[in-house]
Amino acid sequence: MTGEPRIGDVFGELLRDAYAVATGIGPRPLAGGRLPRPVIEIIERDDGLVNGAPAAHYLDGPADWQPYDRRAVDRVRGATLDVGVGAGRIALELQDRGVPVTGLDTSAGALDVCRRRGVRDLVHGTIDEHVADGRRYDTFLLLGNNLGLIEGRERAPAFLAALAALARPGAQVIAHGTDPYGTRDPVHTGYHEQNRRRGRLGGQLRLRLRYRELGTPWFDYLVCSPDELGTLVRGTAWRLADVDDRDAPYYLATLRLAG
Amino acid sequence: MTGEPRIGDVFGELLRDAYAVATGIGPRPLAGGRLPRPVIEIIERDDGLVNGAPAAHYLDGPADWQPYDRRAVDRVRGATLDVGVGAGRIALELQDRGVPVTGLDTSAGALDVCRRRGVRDLVHGTIDEHVADGRRYDTFLLLGNNLGLIEGRERAPAFLAALAALARPGAQVIAHGTDPYGTRDPVHTGYHEQNRRRGRLGGQLRLRLRYRELGTPWFDYLVCSPDELGTLVRGTAWRLADVDDRDAPYYLATLRLAG
Repeated sequence: MTGEPRIGDVFGELLRDAYAVATGIGPRPLAGGRLPRPVIEIIERDDGLVNGAPAAHYLDGPADWQPYDRRAVDRVRGATLDVGVGAGRIALELQDRGVPVTGLDTSAGALDVCRRRGVRDLVHGTIDEHVADGRRYDTFLLLGNNLGLIEGRERAPAFLAALAALARPGAQVIAHGTDPYGTRDPVHTGYHEQNRRRGRLGGQLRLRLRYRELGTPWFDYLVCSPDELGTLVRGTAWRLADVDDRDAPYYLATLRLAG
Repeated sequence: MTGEPRIGDVFGELLRDAYAVATGIGPRPLAGGRLPRPVIEIIERDDGLVNGAPAAHYLDGPADWQPYDRRAVDRVRGATLDVGVGAGRIALELQDRGVPVTGLDTSAGALDVCRRRGVRDLVHGTIDEHVADGRRYDTFLLLGNNLGLIEGRERAPAFLAALAALARPGAQVIAHGTDPYGTRDPVHTGYHEQNRRRGRLGGQLRLRLRYRELGTPWFDYLVCSPDELGTLVRGTAWRLADVDDRDAPYYLATLRLAG
């Protein structure tokens, strides 16, 4: 045996269990079949770094959000696509505010949790796949650090083009990012240098998620500075209109359709 | 890059960080250099199963212990060796009760945390190494599931012989184990079957621990039924004198020097 996980819907299983812990609906994870066990998301980086993060925050209501999430939601207007809707914490708040919101996710299990929590409009798939559905939006949300979905230099143009193809005139993207370059931790600075030597952006993380017996394939997830984001956006249908870095190193980037 | 961790003192780093979180002493782990991050121990099994467990419990005082831990401590008498002392939660309670207790651990970082928390008598090494030190004990504690340290059929005789070599006449071992065979979860029952096909005990786990960039080598850790323990003890210097399974599937096994 090699210690390799089975490929599966890591995020969906994780959220199903977190939902069961939070609500008592469905089988709850137990240690030894007896003691309650918290749901922990495990994130591996390709240099061997691993991080465990409690999953309960995916279900948090606005009172428990970080301030940048509240500011992001205050910027929403019009028909909104929540890209990577997760367990629906943002979409539920927007519904409560009367905003027409659609939740998009590649995880069938995440959408199942969203549905059970009351999110009404859900789409299973990637943004590229969603273009063909003919829906159009005024606001795209990439919260929960989901600016990372632009992956890096190779993927960014196609990702931003798909968002543009889904956009109504005057549309905006509100994206939550993290500037990774403030650290002096050699585990991180060494990784950034190694990335650059391989022709990647410093914070272009190669990750996989694991939960219990399941893992995702390895994927790229971009943690970049606002300057790097500006460079990636140049020449696309979008322009970087605003960066709110009041909670640095976290920031909210607002993109607007150019022209 | 392969995703493989660097070999190091996983347990020590984990406990140092857990101690910093609990006390404010030393650098606390932060996400993005800003938000507090809980300390999570990551346990990988060689079939790809992974579990994340908050590490704070290693510092718990008796009020937060599981009932079997309190019953175990009540069984202690005489000079006591706490095998796998960890962050010293058991040793500190014994010191408070006036019991002469020695904490043994292979993790230098764990012993550092014990020292800072006030555990007075500490030994770095394995029980095999400790035999040569000339110290002798009336009680050996294997708590926190540390019955697992007997590993399996190959290691058990040498492990139990080392304890016997450290034992005074009439000595006892108080060991916390977990009966793994109550589950119907195919992730576990399939693993047990595969183990048996390889000539191992069903619950002979092959594990490694990970924390941040560090990992341990793969090691065997035994989760066995009281019956299996009885078989392993047969023919050694010890006899299985008592099994307290009031908190099944967890149990406290008491071994006594035979003859």
